[in-house]
Amino acid sequence: MNQYCFGVDLGGTTVKIGLFNPEGSVLEKWEIPTRKTDNGSKILPDIADAILGKMEERKIAKDSVIGVGIGVPGPVDDNGVVHKAVNLGWDVMNINEILGGLLDMPVKAGNDANVAALGEMWCGGGKGCSNMVLATLGTGVGGGIIVNGRMVTGATGAGGEIGHIHIADEEPDTCGCGNHGCLEQYASATGIVRLANRKLASSSKESTLREIKADGELSAKAVFDAVKAGDALACEIAEEFGMYLGKGLAAIACVVNPEVFVLGGGVSKAGEILCEYVSKYYKEYVFHGCREAQFKLATLGNDAGIYGAAKLVC
Amino acid sequence: MNQYCFGVDLGGTTVKIGLFNPEGSVLEKWEIPTRKTDNGSKILPDIADAILGKMEERKIAKDSVIGVGIGVPGPVDDNGVVHKAVNLGWDVMNINEILGGLLDMPVKAGNDANVAALGEMWCGGGKGCSNMVLATLGTGVGGGIIVNGRMVTGATGAGGEIGHIHIADEEPDTCGCGNHGCLEQYASATGIVRLANRKLASSSKESTLREIKADGELSAKAVFDAVKAGDALACEIAEEFGMYLGKGLAAIACVVNPEVFVLGGGVSKAGEILCEYVSKYYKEYVFHGCREAQFKLATLGNDAGIYGAAKLVC
Repeated sequence: MNQYCFGVDLGGTTVKIGLFNPEGSVLEKWEIPTRKTDNGSKILPDIADAILGKMEERKIAKDSVIGVGIGVPGPVDDNGVVHKAVNLGWDVMNINEILGGLLDMPVKAGNDANVAALGEMWCGGGKGCSNMVLATLGTGVGGGIIVNGRMVTGATGAGGEIGHIHIADEEPDTCGCGNHGCLEQYASATGIVRLANRKLASSSKESTLREIKADGELSAKAVFDAVKAGDALACEIAEEFGMYLGKGLAAIACVVNPEVFVLGGGVSKAGEILCEYVSKYYKEYVFHGCREAQFKLATLGNDAGIYGAAKLVC
Repeated sequence: MNQYCFGVDLGGTTVKIGLFNPEGSVLEKWEIPTRKTDNGSKILPDIADAILGKMEERKIAKDSVIGVGIGVPGPVDDNGVVHKAVNLGWDVMNINEILGGLLDMPVKAGNDANVAALGEMWCGGGKGCSNMVLATLGTGVGGGIIVNGRMVTGATGAGGEIGHIHIADEEPDTCGCGNHGCLEQYASATGIVRLANRKLASSSKESTLREIKADGELSAKAVFDAVKAGDALACEIAEEFGMYLGKGLAAIACVVNPEVFVLGGGVSKAGEILCEYVSKYYKEYVFHGCREAQFKLATLGNDAGIYGAAKLVC
């Protein structure tokens, strides 16, 4: 008898669903829209319909499905209770019970950033590790901590909120969280643009980034493209970025001592060069007992969520 | 049939041993010397003799003992392998197997700082919690991280080495680990004396600490005694200490999001006032989702190790 599991990545506009085998191969993946009307009350029934429909289509019997994992954009405790997911219109509710009731199958929910880390551990950049940290460098900086193969949820679902580690004392700008000097203010795509703008203003050095800025197209990608083209000012910006992120990851290492740091999110498209800038400063700041941690790029991209969700149940 | 377990805290000069019931009551505790001759080869046989002797004395049958836990001063992996314990003269060896063989009972070993955290969770300042951080403020700063009721060992046994989180960029002095600006340089007993010496040198304010320093008796205890007596300069030192430690614990919170921080070690004898100074700055630096963490004092003192060791097996 074949065994299957489903992984669901619930986003604000789209629900991604994957059908997996327990070895971590995705057999099929597809998307449905996230219907947020009526305080998001249609979302879980839509997901249940999609899964039950796929099982009928593929003639998959219920007893050959190990379960359904789901990543949710909000804090989720170990019992599957989501404590408000504002993007979806949800208040407090138990996903494991509600979706499990609709499907009559085991369901396990987790926070989407943590679940993505589990996916990268299972089949991505952290494959083969059981102690891993995923740093997702996108518009903000998110993260997921894996200890002994399990996600670290924390007491209130804020485990892995590494973007808000205080990293700099003299920051005048306010972070989205209300604090000053959070890691996210330097290591996110937005943060890198901030660093670039500051550097362009404080330096008189020639740089291709000046024209790019004049065209209104300064971005994290533009900075790392310029680094690869040998632009000296862009390299200074990358050093600063590496210093802040390396320092932040060194602090994390003193807490959970991972085997590997996996760098994901849009910024990680810059490639291996990113790992070089970060690991250089990581080694400078970290406790010697954690010095051998590896730096790898995430490999699952937007599919990390469905992989990790499937791994929740198998 | 009564059930028992033993908790062993192996130190550089003394081995503490406790006989427990599985509910966490210590029935008897005693000490034997740590014989470090012959590269520490006598240590585990001595411990086995002490435990077997106690069982004979109390007529405890082998099948009523759940097991023996032991905390060791060195990095210990999840299989009980200690990777060099320089204080004991030990190279790499598997404590679970060797001591388990001598006793013919289940043995589980862990690093002493992590094991102490487990003890404080079981029966001390963190009782009732399953997500907890112990910060041990002694000559240095050690720590233990508990996630979902289990110790975080990490990839190389350096989980919970929170004393070496980089916390200050401008530190001229070198930490014992070789880095600059580690948390330990400000939040240990030694660190507090350093802060006090700097403050006394940079300020012209009156303070009882000046005479104490002249008598060569400046200590962390003297600083907090002066704080309690209302000494303004001592209060400034305590604010600085609170700022550094609060900032460090806020970084830890963004990783593992504990319910409670337990403050232990010699410095914690200053009492509740310590929690006030630390939590004030913690709240200033921490991510809002982790703001509600509590601060408590360790309550088990030097017995945390035997409690945690017993908890390893029951």
